[in-house]
Amino acid sequence: MSSTAKPRRGRARARQNTVTAAFDRAWRQWRNPYPPVEQFRPDEVEAIHKTSLRVLSDIGLKVLDDDARRLLVKAGMTEAGDQVIRFDPDLVMELLGHAPREVTLHGRGPDRDVSLGGNKVAICTTGGTPNFSDIKGGRRPGTLADLDNLCRVAQGFDVIHVIGPFVEAQDIPPNLRHFAMTRSVLTLTDKVPFVFFRGAQAVADAYEMIRLAHGLSEEEFRQTPVCYGVANSNSPLQLDHLMCRGIIDAARAGQLMVLTPFTLSGAMAPVTLPGALAQQNAEAMAGIALSQIARPGAPVCYGSFTTNVDMKTGSPAFGTPEYTKAAFASGQLARFYGLPLRSSGVTASNTVDAQAAYEHQMSLWGALMGGTNLLLHGAGWLEGGLTASAEKFIVDVEQLQMFAELFKPVEVNEATLGFDAMQEVGHGGHFFGTQHTLERFETAFYSPLVSDWSNYENWAERGAEDTQTRAHRIFFETVEAHEPPPLAPERLEEIDDFIARRTADGGADIDR
Amino acid sequence: MSSTAKPRRGRARARQNTVTAAFDRAWRQWRNPYPPVEQFRPDEVEAIHKTSLRVLSDIGLKVLDDDARRLLVKAGMTEAGDQVIRFDPDLVMELLGHAPREVTLHGRGPDRDVSLGGNKVAICTTGGTPNFSDIKGGRRPGTLADLDNLCRVAQGFDVIHVIGPFVEAQDIPPNLRHFAMTRSVLTLTDKVPFVFFRGAQAVADAYEMIRLAHGLSEEEFRQTPVCYGVANSNSPLQLDHLMCRGIIDAARAGQLMVLTPFTLSGAMAPVTLPGALAQQNAEAMAGIALSQIARPGAPVCYGSFTTNVDMKTGSPAFGTPEYTKAAFASGQLARFYGLPLRSSGVTASNTVDAQAAYEHQMSLWGALMGGTNLLLHGAGWLEGGLTASAEKFIVDVEQLQMFAELFKPVEVNEATLGFDAMQEVGHGGHFFGTQHTLERFETAFYSPLVSDWSNYENWAERGAEDTQTRAHRIFFETVEAHEPPPLAPERLEEIDDFIARRTADGGADIDR
Repeated sequence: MSSTAKPRRGRARARQNTVTAAFDRAWRQWRNPYPPVEQFRPDEVEAIHKTSLRVLSDIGLKVLDDDARRLLVKAGMTEAGDQVIRFDPDLVMELLGHAPREVTLHGRGPDRDVSLGGNKVAICTTGGTPNFSDIKGGRRPGTLADLDNLCRVAQGFDVIHVIGPFVEAQDIPPNLRHFAMTRSVLTLTDKVPFVFFRGAQAVADAYEMIRLAHGLSEEEFRQTPVCYGVANSNSPLQLDHLMCRGIIDAARAGQLMVLTPFTLSGAMAPVTLPGALAQQNAEAMAGIALSQIARPGAPVCYGSFTTNVDMKTGSPAFGTPEYTKAAFASGQLARFYGLPLRSSGVTASNTVDAQAAYEHQMSLWGALMGGTNLLLHGAGWLEGGLTASAEKFIVDVEQLQMFAELFKPVEVNEATLGFDAMQEVGHGGHFFGTQHTLERFETAFYSPLVSDWSNYENWAERGAEDTQTRAHRIFFETVEAHEPPPLAPERLEEIDDFIARRTADGGADIDR
Repeated sequence: MSSTAKPRRGRARARQNTVTAAFDRAWRQWRNPYPPVEQFRPDEVEAIHKTSLRVLSDIGLKVLDDDARRLLVKAGMTEAGDQVIRFDPDLVMELLGHAPREVTLHGRGPDRDVSLGGNKVAICTTGGTPNFSDIKGGRRPGTLADLDNLCRVAQGFDVIHVIGPFVEAQDIPPNLRHFAMTRSVLTLTDKVPFVFFRGAQAVADAYEMIRLAHGLSEEEFRQTPVCYGVANSNSPLQLDHLMCRGIIDAARAGQLMVLTPFTLSGAMAPVTLPGALAQQNAEAMAGIALSQIARPGAPVCYGSFTTNVDMKTGSPAFGTPEYTKAAFASGQLARFYGLPLRSSGVTASNTVDAQAAYEHQMSLWGALMGGTNLLLHGAGWLEGGLTASAEKFIVDVEQLQMFAELFKPVEVNEATLGFDAMQEVGHGGHFFGTQHTLERFETAFYSPLVSDWSNYENWAERGAEDTQTRAHRIFFETVEAHEPPPLAPERLEEIDDFIARRTADGGADIDR
């Protein structure tokens, strides 16, 4: 089927979606048609930038990895004792200048490539939660079976472009977990996979498996971004060993590294938004500078995660007004440096209710209207990231599909202005039967996945199910409908041989 | 207490809010700090505008009221037979030029004035639903007692500025209902009240009651907008008797008239967005032109309600991507004519779940980022407007408060950039105990009304209540905490005497 065929949507799409099915290109590579919303004036952005440089030069960053400190000092930064590195502002700016403005992540399946930068946007699932939940099975520690189901569902929706690490497969020993999780992503999806920064061995193992799945030579792999990893600075102003290793190893492997400071305003960052952003910015610049030292031109993404804490309990809040403002402002900062921007879809809610939706929306609008290029945690995140929820995944996919449709341009021309249709219908009639409507009604409007637009009586008669209940069914129907994407048997064999060999070696020491 | 005192928020605010309590001025008169999002290029807006004028001149509008047709023809429009009026484009534009760019609605209580226009925004509750629902009492036909409770809760939250007609008091006979509903609004709130356009008598009665409540002379009343009414054109391209009367009577009374076409794309308007907008625009211009003939300079608002129908069932959909685009575009059209814009907060959901929240958010963001000045149905609307929901009211107030906070500007200066705080905390510490935090933590962040930010274990231990359940409790707590705003006993006596006299006359013929 050609890509101009009528797109199938909603549950039909979920059931039937395979790599050979028709698809809607606008859902595969989003382009944001709206100019970004700006929180601050240019002079205010400049003030935040200058404060960040002052933080880097006068306070510096504690860098807990010997290699990283050596690299930084060799490049011209200053050791200030106690593992603290002070950064030269001009050198930081020079290094940031090496980073590419746009990164294309190459998916394994056809039409799975996705670019980040400018007005291009890619969407990633949730990742890194210890728990999984669905309303029938309840909330429980994540397993590989849960991760597999999440992979299957992620594969089923075209608005998901990048695979996050979903849920911890806690039934697999830590030293072998990266083998199992990466294998699941590579066999159940053909989308861009994640790599966890859990030490040099685990990172190297994951890269090798992904390289084999793509059938790339080692040199080709280093030249072709096909996966990504996230380095969280240990705010305030600290980078630990695992994150440093991830930054350096990703750069040397030519794979995307997303540098995301964990700046919780009021806790690990100043209680004021400009202060929290100045700190976020300082930490992001430091990590990206390190990556550009390790390999000039390495693909990176400026990560924004600034939110506030609940000052009564100290626990993080998500999708707050402060979060939305920080997302708008982070877009301005990323564009100031000419870097792609990462933001997130988030909520603190403990169940898939109204709060889960309005907090997620506040974060989505902040991220997307702020100019985000890579949206992490776009589908499935619950409880501030402690749970991956089956129902939340579906509810979020609905919202993502709505955004993909919102981002589609509308043509204004003689035909769409519809004067003739209005003349035909006249006064007090209706448009249902006009030629103008009949020619367009099948594709004119977004058709929902989980939203129920029926009237109260019909809805009540069918059991008065809320969105969460309907989403549960769609999640597991999509699991059932999953068809694994093609992966050449010889490549899978190579991957499995590799896993067997490395398992025999004892797997990875995830603290190294 | 002064207006600079620390604002009390959340449930405490709901419980303690009285007209003498401290309040947050930014919540009382919203100012949108963001430039409006634009859906179309200027030449595309121009093309929609020109199509609307062509519709008005070549197809015309069916005007079912004799007085209105006489006024239009006397002003220079053309009778085309069968009650159809064709509009002269130049004359339409000339008439629109008389309408004020900004309207101030004068509330009865202190600091209840609210302006619409430019970047100023006012929020109104839901209105006009036949049913009321709460999760304990269930869904049932609305009564005056339900309306009273909604008035009490609307009075309790500063982010609500204007009172919508909430729910039909179906236990009161139609000929007397406007007395009861208006009396409730005037005695239980001091905010800007609605007037239903249900015939000349009912409108005149409501205006008289509102005039008496304000203690204005008849001449003062005509010079002082203190209430509003909505005229829905009967799309496509038709204005019925009651709407014409409302338009004319509101203009002559000097009270705000919101002209809102009911353009459901695919049903009562073209299936294409530019076509539906061209029709909305034509109908809005026609009604506003009529108001400016009745009284040049009469306060008006350009109403946008364009949404799409579900093409499978024909029922209206709300908070869709198409709705959001139409809201952005309607802002461009309203600004093209220099008129304040009305939009709405909407959902088709039948219960207060995730769908209710994400559809409401899609409409809120479309409205508010589109440059809306008057948001109708901002709190409480459910089931596409068939039910006013207690829980939805609270969930929506939470979202409105989040927007009010989002709209507050952030100052960037030496103190907020927080360099000294970052230096004090250093690497790997936390900001909880710093002077910088202690000076600000009480007011630094938005404190939620119904959102629950506690962790899963605490939340589960307290009964694992979802947002709807928590909202139920807050609604009825706010009802209990209500204190009627001051209304001079002699004014109330005048109102009650008026009601008694008019009731003895037989009330209003609501079809005239």
